[in-house]
Amino acid sequence: MIKTMVVTFLTVFLLAFLSLTSLANEGMWLLDFISQLPIDSMKALGLRLNPEESYNPKGGGIADAVVKFGGATGAFVSPEGLIITNHHVAYTAVQRQSTPEHNYLGDGFYAQTKEQELPAIGYNVYVIKSFEDVTQRVLSALNERMSDLERYKAVENITKEIIRKAEKGKDVKCKLVSMYGGSQYYLFTYFKIRDVRLVYVPPLSVGEYGGEIDNWMWPRHAGDFAFLRTYVAPDGKSVNYSKENVPYNSKVYLKLSSSGIKEGDFVMLIGFPGTTKRYESSFSIDKMVNHDYPKDIRTRQEVISILKEASAEDSSVAIKLSSRIKGLNNYLKKNQGMLEGFKRAQILQGKIEEEKLLKEFLNENPKLNKNYGHILPELDNLFKEYKKFQDKKFIVEWMTDRCDFLDFASTIYKWSLEKKKKDQDREPGYQDRDTLETKEWLEDTQVNLVPSTDKKVFGYFLTKALQLPFGQKIGAIEKVFEGAEKKDRNKILEEFVNDLYEKTELGSVEERLKMFGMNEGELEKQNDPFINFAKQLEVEREELRKKKKEFSGALTRLEPKLIQAYAEWKKKRLYPDANGTIRFNYGQVKGYVPQDAVSFRYITTLAGVMEKNTSQEPFDVPEELEEVYSKKDFGSYFDESIGDVPVNFLSTNDITNGNSGSPVMNGKGELVGLAFDGNYESISADYLFDPELTRAINVDIRYVLFLLDKVYHVEGLLKELSIH
Amino acid sequence: MIKTMVVTFLTVFLLAFLSLTSLANEGMWLLDFISQLPIDSMKALGLRLNPEESYNPKGGGIADAVVKFGGATGAFVSPEGLIITNHHVAYTAVQRQSTPEHNYLGDGFYAQTKEQELPAIGYNVYVIKSFEDVTQRVLSALNERMSDLERYKAVENITKEIIRKAEKGKDVKCKLVSMYGGSQYYLFTYFKIRDVRLVYVPPLSVGEYGGEIDNWMWPRHAGDFAFLRTYVAPDGKSVNYSKENVPYNSKVYLKLSSSGIKEGDFVMLIGFPGTTKRYESSFSIDKMVNHDYPKDIRTRQEVISILKEASAEDSSVAIKLSSRIKGLNNYLKKNQGMLEGFKRAQILQGKIEEEKLLKEFLNENPKLNKNYGHILPELDNLFKEYKKFQDKKFIVEWMTDRCDFLDFASTIYKWSLEKKKKDQDREPGYQDRDTLETKEWLEDTQVNLVPSTDKKVFGYFLTKALQLPFGQKIGAIEKVFEGAEKKDRNKILEEFVNDLYEKTELGSVEERLKMFGMNEGELEKQNDPFINFAKQLEVEREELRKKKKEFSGALTRLEPKLIQAYAEWKKKRLYPDANGTIRFNYGQVKGYVPQDAVSFRYITTLAGVMEKNTSQEPFDVPEELEEVYSKKDFGSYFDESIGDVPVNFLSTNDITNGNSGSPVMNGKGELVGLAFDGNYESISADYLFDPELTRAINVDIRYVLFLLDKVYHVEGLLKELSIH
Repeated sequence: MIKTMVVTFLTVFLLAFLSLTSLANEGMWLLDFISQLPIDSMKALGLRLNPEESYNPKGGGIADAVVKFGGATGAFVSPEGLIITNHHVAYTAVQRQSTPEHNYLGDGFYAQTKEQELPAIGYNVYVIKSFEDVTQRVLSALNERMSDLERYKAVENITKEIIRKAEKGKDVKCKLVSMYGGSQYYLFTYFKIRDVRLVYVPPLSVGEYGGEIDNWMWPRHAGDFAFLRTYVAPDGKSVNYSKENVPYNSKVYLKLSSSGIKEGDFVMLIGFPGTTKRYESSFSIDKMVNHDYPKDIRTRQEVISILKEASAEDSSVAIKLSSRIKGLNNYLKKNQGMLEGFKRAQILQGKIEEEKLLKEFLNENPKLNKNYGHILPELDNLFKEYKKFQDKKFIVEWMTDRCDFLDFASTIYKWSLEKKKKDQDREPGYQDRDTLETKEWLEDTQVNLVPSTDKKVFGYFLTKALQLPFGQKIGAIEKVFEGAEKKDRNKILEEFVNDLYEKTELGSVEERLKMFGMNEGELEKQNDPFINFAKQLEVEREELRKKKKEFSGALTRLEPKLIQAYAEWKKKRLYPDANGTIRFNYGQVKGYVPQDAVSFRYITTLAGVMEKNTSQEPFDVPEELEEVYSKKDFGSYFDESIGDVPVNFLSTNDITNGNSGSPVMNGKGELVGLAFDGNYESISADYLFDPELTRAINVDIRYVLFLLDKVYHVEGLLKELSIH
Repeated sequence: MIKTMVVTFLTVFLLAFLSLTSLANEGMWLLDFISQLPIDSMKALGLRLNPEESYNPKGGGIADAVVKFGGATGAFVSPEGLIITNHHVAYTAVQRQSTPEHNYLGDGFYAQTKEQELPAIGYNVYVIKSFEDVTQRVLSALNERMSDLERYKAVENITKEIIRKAEKGKDVKCKLVSMYGGSQYYLFTYFKIRDVRLVYVPPLSVGEYGGEIDNWMWPRHAGDFAFLRTYVAPDGKSVNYSKENVPYNSKVYLKLSSSGIKEGDFVMLIGFPGTTKRYESSFSIDKMVNHDYPKDIRTRQEVISILKEASAEDSSVAIKLSSRIKGLNNYLKKNQGMLEGFKRAQILQGKIEEEKLLKEFLNENPKLNKNYGHILPELDNLFKEYKKFQDKKFIVEWMTDRCDFLDFASTIYKWSLEKKKKDQDREPGYQDRDTLETKEWLEDTQVNLVPSTDKKVFGYFLTKALQLPFGQKIGAIEKVFEGAEKKDRNKILEEFVNDLYEKTELGSVEERLKMFGMNEGELEKQNDPFINFAKQLEVEREELRKKKKEFSGALTRLEPKLIQAYAEWKKKRLYPDANGTIRFNYGQVKGYVPQDAVSFRYITTLAGVMEKNTSQEPFDVPEELEEVYSKKDFGSYFDESIGDVPVNFLSTNDITNGNSGSPVMNGKGELVGLAFDGNYESISADYLFDPELTRAINVDIRYVLFLLDKVYHVEGLLKELSIH
């Protein structure tokens, strides 16, 4: 279902008194903080721009060229709304337009004219209009006597109130987010562009060269880039796809540098990193290491094997399931790497040690201890309580997220309940402002819907639910087996699932939209078995929601204080964790030493692409590229210092998921690359940034230009770009 | 069964007229050629010795310190017969002395006094007494009118004749080997020491740190060394183990250098490389790439899985099968690497191309073409003929080699036939001189004999034999199913195998030795079912032997000529392929670039050992080592230039199987390391040496000394060594 950004938390503390020490390369800084970064030492490294040329609240800074996709980043590269991002960001859009006859995914796609551009179904682009610190407005709604649940609800209400007022009468989408676990609140105002079109994508064997094998790996050799274009109504309003629409006028756009990078060069990056947890407590990390990740990994593997089995049987099903498998796989490797990284970097042990030292520091400062001494014991208790419902929560959430039919049913039923409330009082994601997106989702999902596979996945989760420990059983499911003997359970389960999928009407877009329009009474009269099941399940989802809110409410009380305690102890400038908002980061082009006796160079080459070529996916170099390589027709894209055409490069930039497609810029703000991955050692950097080992993997913009120019001869697109 | 060195081939050509060009690092040179190597440029690199200090036919050169094991190398390091070699060379000896109570393999072994030294069961050490060029004597037995089979037999006869004369009345073992495919013949005279004892081996987790995972890999962190001692009778004669024996007086022994190596240093190596095929024709390589290696790999995998299954069921069986699995695995990885290397280095395509160019060269030189033009077409035909029996040959040989009971039966039966002939006329390996070794083998094998597993392996090969193509069926096996329906075959097979293993007496050492002493008639009267089966099989083994001899005879005619043709074309000094005889090689300490953007440093460190530590096999660092590491008690073994204790290093030396344990020496002839492996990229170097990628992996002698001194406190042994 539509994911809305969870908006939470409170309690203020001021960072201003902290001494400003440079955390070289680590740090995802808010744009309004750029001017306070160590500009002089950045200039010594190679920065040429003044802070206001990077970001200017009045507009015109290069940050204005950077845009947000659902969970990724892109950048304008022409005044006509042309965006560059990663191939893997455009992947689902390309896949949705691909058929066995027009295999754009496999062959690549190029629209020579604007008329040939194809809709990127389900894609939206968010352009930042403004953002502001609204901490005082949020905090004014809270008081010290509130319970955790009251606190949670108060933040939720004031959030909705602020957003409602900000969006009212304007063609904008607003998001309110907390920083530092809830000490600061920012309101972001976006212009949401709904008409996005595909302009150019390279063949899969270039864009995703190396596939799953190379994912998260260095050395890397992927041409992971794509171009899309944004459109608006002739009057400038944001509207859905229409022939009458005109390209969005992107006043600020990035110039491309053809002069390239070399080791040691200063590079900066702007993007929308999704989530980091750099200030997490040991209790939370224990939960992740010993529950969340192991369970997530096992579940992903099992669901992937169900989807792969279905794909093997039918090639049209395979196309439909491909981006789903891709998504599951991407996080599978990430989460495995995370667990390994936790172990290698001994993050849990390190946190426990750090908290011990913090306690000692507080004990030596009775005044501070009075303020902060209670936090760690409270967090300990809080996570112990959480354990009592974590298994049930895991199954209910995965089941609803990963089974399309159950997701439809649960969302539609929940809407019928929420609709009865005042807009202001509803759950986030179920307000009038969410109606359009929900409808779009109910429609767009149809392209990749495979009922027979969905049924298998649903059956899998039901079986898992039966194995839940006592005290965490799911009533809606247990009810199915009421009175039955244990040995008959499999048969009953099979019949139950068959019945649901046979009799439901949710497989049709029309019926889904119809049901979405109904009120609770009308919906119940439909007597759709999936809606009936969702109704049963909603009782328990609501109970879990409440527990989670209490838990979150308590965290918003405790986490900001924990961060504050660390700040008191370390006397250090801290940056807020990533939360999907725009951030600035700077670093250097740099290789690393992954293990004893092994060095990784900062850059890969075209010869390296050929070296890996097996002529079989995922290492199947297209003929056109092989030909240009054998002719050595490299033109100006040949880099003397490496003796070849550059392909990917490493930098010390601090990135995470959500940064995919982020522009990597030289000191002059010119585009030199696109971030598309982190190295394997960087996966655990979401929790602990190790400057020796953490690296961003970027496509060299010279490889992009080489492919467009020498290999695929995409002259029109090249002409539109501004290459310096 | 006992492997005797295949002694073959003829036809002379002289290399003297060729210009001498240095093939940097490539080349396994005969000792009598050292003085003709580019000594001046070697001295410029760091050589300090004069040629006669390396090898002096009159004795005293450092080469005299280098000794041969069955298929490996060692070196004397004290005047009292103390030998250093690899842990994996001593492995089987250690394993044969290990029990669940005394787990020397796991815990390591150290004899503080000579009395505590344990027999290395089945181990022999060969010390070179002399060698001489006997080409003229061999060639005098041949003439141009002989058929290929006649030629083969003539070489075999003269070989036996020469050996017989050379060994007569002397306490020596002789081997006659052909060089350059049969243009030159050398007679090697060895003093064979039969009483070999274990002195010191580190724990498995040091000696084989990294196990199968790291095998053939860099970066490497193994302490792959061991010490053994050689004993002779008080009068100096070679005898079996006896308490009265005294240490062998090794006049020449190597000094150890404690000053270490650094990148770029000159290093030289002397050892007994087993087999290279650097001058192979494309037809032969085609056979290997498309038949021999794929089939070998599959068979190894399947046999290993049978042995592993048996090991999983019983830990005492696991100990018995361990060195067998190790052997199969080692060549499995090697052969897989070989196939990959063939592909990566495009060796087949390269050879085809080279032969095309050779043909062109010959076509332009009618006189040479008359001599050499016929060779390639003849080789082509020869290998086509070979294909007609290669599958049958493969099964018969693997079956006899890998099933102990069948190996006993076939060997004993074959002896009963050969015994009837004059010594001179027998098959090699079945002469009087081989009696003792065969008896030793019949005895020593008992330690690791597991009849139940042997039966499974035998059954596996019988099933494979049934799948042979028509025209290559094995009569002895087909006979078992005579008249039976296809569907009954499995049952019949099972009964047949059960019967063999139930009724045979070959499981007892006593019975085996008794049968070994019998003549054919007596043996047949025994009516042992395994002997009966071996008798049936012998008919076909004999036929295959004959075909192989014809094939080999033809090769001895053609291959020397092919090498000569190459020499004519390339005007280049060529060295003979490795054939288990002693060779000299020089190179440099050097890292390499295995793939785009990755560099391998020349040396690994103790920190790297700890980095890999998982506390689980094969990465389970012993506590003693962890403790010394945590105390940083490195003493003089700490290398300032790398900031740590060195562990393993890379050099450009040209090595292959058989070089295991070879001393790596600095320019002064002091021991700086022990070769124990090649890198993965070097596996295909047996066919094509790539100076960019081929590297020897060596234990740094400083790691050996650090372990003896700081970790295991083996003072007595350290005192015996001569450390400079």
